[in-house]
Amino acid sequence: MLILSKYLKSRQKLVDAELRRRLPGAKTRPATIHEAMRYSVFAGGKRLRPVLGLAAAEACGAEEKKDDIGFTNALALGAAVEILHTYTLIHDDLPCMDDDDFRRGNPTCHKVYGEGIAVLAGDALLTLAFEIVADIKAPKRYPLADFVRELSDTGGSRKLIGGQVMDLEGEGQGAEITPAQLRYIHESKTAALLTTAIRFGGMAANATPKQLEALTVFGHSLGLAFQVIDDILDVTQTSEKLGKSAGKDQAAGKATYPAQFGLEKSRAEAAMLTARAREALQVFGARGERLREIADYLLDRDY
Amino acid sequence: MLILSKYLKSRQKLVDAELRRRLPGAKTRPATIHEAMRYSVFAGGKRLRPVLGLAAAEACGAEEKKDDIGFTNALALGAAVEILHTYTLIHDDLPCMDDDDFRRGNPTCHKVYGEGIAVLAGDALLTLAFEIVADIKAPKRYPLADFVRELSDTGGSRKLIGGQVMDLEGEGQGAEITPAQLRYIHESKTAALLTTAIRFGGMAANATPKQLEALTVFGHSLGLAFQVIDDILDVTQTSEKLGKSAGKDQAAGKATYPAQFGLEKSRAEAAMLTARAREALQVFGARGERLREIADYLLDRDY
Repeated sequence: MLILSKYLKSRQKLVDAELRRRLPGAKTRPATIHEAMRYSVFAGGKRLRPVLGLAAAEACGAEEKKDDIGFTNALALGAAVEILHTYTLIHDDLPCMDDDDFRRGNPTCHKVYGEGIAVLAGDALLTLAFEIVADIKAPKRYPLADFVRELSDTGGSRKLIGGQVMDLEGEGQGAEITPAQLRYIHESKTAALLTTAIRFGGMAANATPKQLEALTVFGHSLGLAFQVIDDILDVTQTSEKLGKSAGKDQAAGKATYPAQFGLEKSRAEAAMLTARAREALQVFGARGERLREIADYLLDRDY
Repeated sequence: MLILSKYLKSRQKLVDAELRRRLPGAKTRPATIHEAMRYSVFAGGKRLRPVLGLAAAEACGAEEKKDDIGFTNALALGAAVEILHTYTLIHDDLPCMDDDDFRRGNPTCHKVYGEGIAVLAGDALLTLAFEIVADIKAPKRYPLADFVRELSDTGGSRKLIGGQVMDLEGEGQGAEITPAQLRYIHESKTAALLTTAIRFGGMAANATPKQLEALTVFGHSLGLAFQVIDDILDVTQTSEKLGKSAGKDQAAGKATYPAQFGLEKSRAEAAMLTARAREALQVFGARGERLREIADYLLDRDY
């Protein structure tokens, strides 16, 4: 088995190639929108969601081969999830939302292309995500409708977008938000899409129901852990290191785990969630090793 | 055959019921977003696109019966198209785009709910459109992938969104835009979605390739005619009658048919396009009568 850093690099490379292939060229007419879309998609993301999807597909038996349909499907679905994720970042960064000037160390889409184009680039990426999903060769157990439904459910008003609404409405209320509301925001803003990214990998490789259930628990726990850690980093890190404006959550009076429970408890929560994620992988035996490694790697981010 | 006004009313009623059923309830958590979504969808649209889709399905043999899958499919697809159309209106009205305060006689979404929620309500409607498409029972000739692909292509960066980009970039350049660019804007902003609405009706009812080709020509010509008429109305009508701010195109220096060719030539263009649309319906014989009537009705709007 490749060491983790090499594995991550090789998978990121595959994902980037898939994204380049799926996005219209920067000169496609009208050029502005296609430039803006590519600008945000290629602004240096770590491709965490698609890489997790590929690792999940591999845990279910997919292999990196040209004619392995499970792997090819997982790659396409990973690109779709990453593109949908990028649209949420563009819209969340808008002045009428979180009003962020930097993202991954670069000026945000609206700072470079203006607000109108940023709104449209987000819309176009969201639309493109479904176009890519429509292109997969549906595996035996999961018809195409399952994938379209899951992506629209996860990306919809009850989950991803709902979480952003609660987040917007919670601003300035800080500690007054209840732990249940905070959990809802985390579940819908982060855990839902991470879970779908991982489930898509499994479904792409025609996972058994038991495998898919395990991936669901894994994804959900990991997603929650990931968000808690993100909140911690916002408090403890410099903007330079984060590649985005640090301390923004605090300044905006946003509800976060550290704001509600303090740093110590937040760290314990992240560790507990990661342990639960690891446990879910038992059904895969040795084949789950890679997912386990990635979970550990995510928990050990600098914080 | 019902007289046209009764037919339109009965179909609008069916579409409204379908939309009510498809949109999450206004109290679904988080309530703000679901209120905003419903506010814009039920702000008094004439449901032109879904009604055309139903009429196209009927031209291909679908009937208004509970167990007619073609009709049921067409109704669901009509709701999806209308919901996607509504999202484009919400985003186009934003201050960073066309900056419109009124739409269909009512304050626009962002005037009522604020810009952040308006962006998210648009995002959620776009996402919901695909969720609804995933729910149809795909007809024999057209697998689900065909519908998802067509909706994302039409709604994507090369067509609908591309048209809005060209429109944004053309503002203030007015007459300097070439006729070819103007045609591109009209084709991508209006004709593309109208064509898809009509094609979806035919595909829902398992249209033959020949029927689908005729519906495509019909939709494209009608869509172009519709946009030319819209531009004419912006010049000739009062805001009160339009239910939205009149003269906005002129004020913004937007490229329009009347601005480029004058009112007389614009009216002739609309009539020519409608004639072409009528001609395409010949393949349907008597069954195309309803679509022909609707085309005439659309051309005879007050202008």
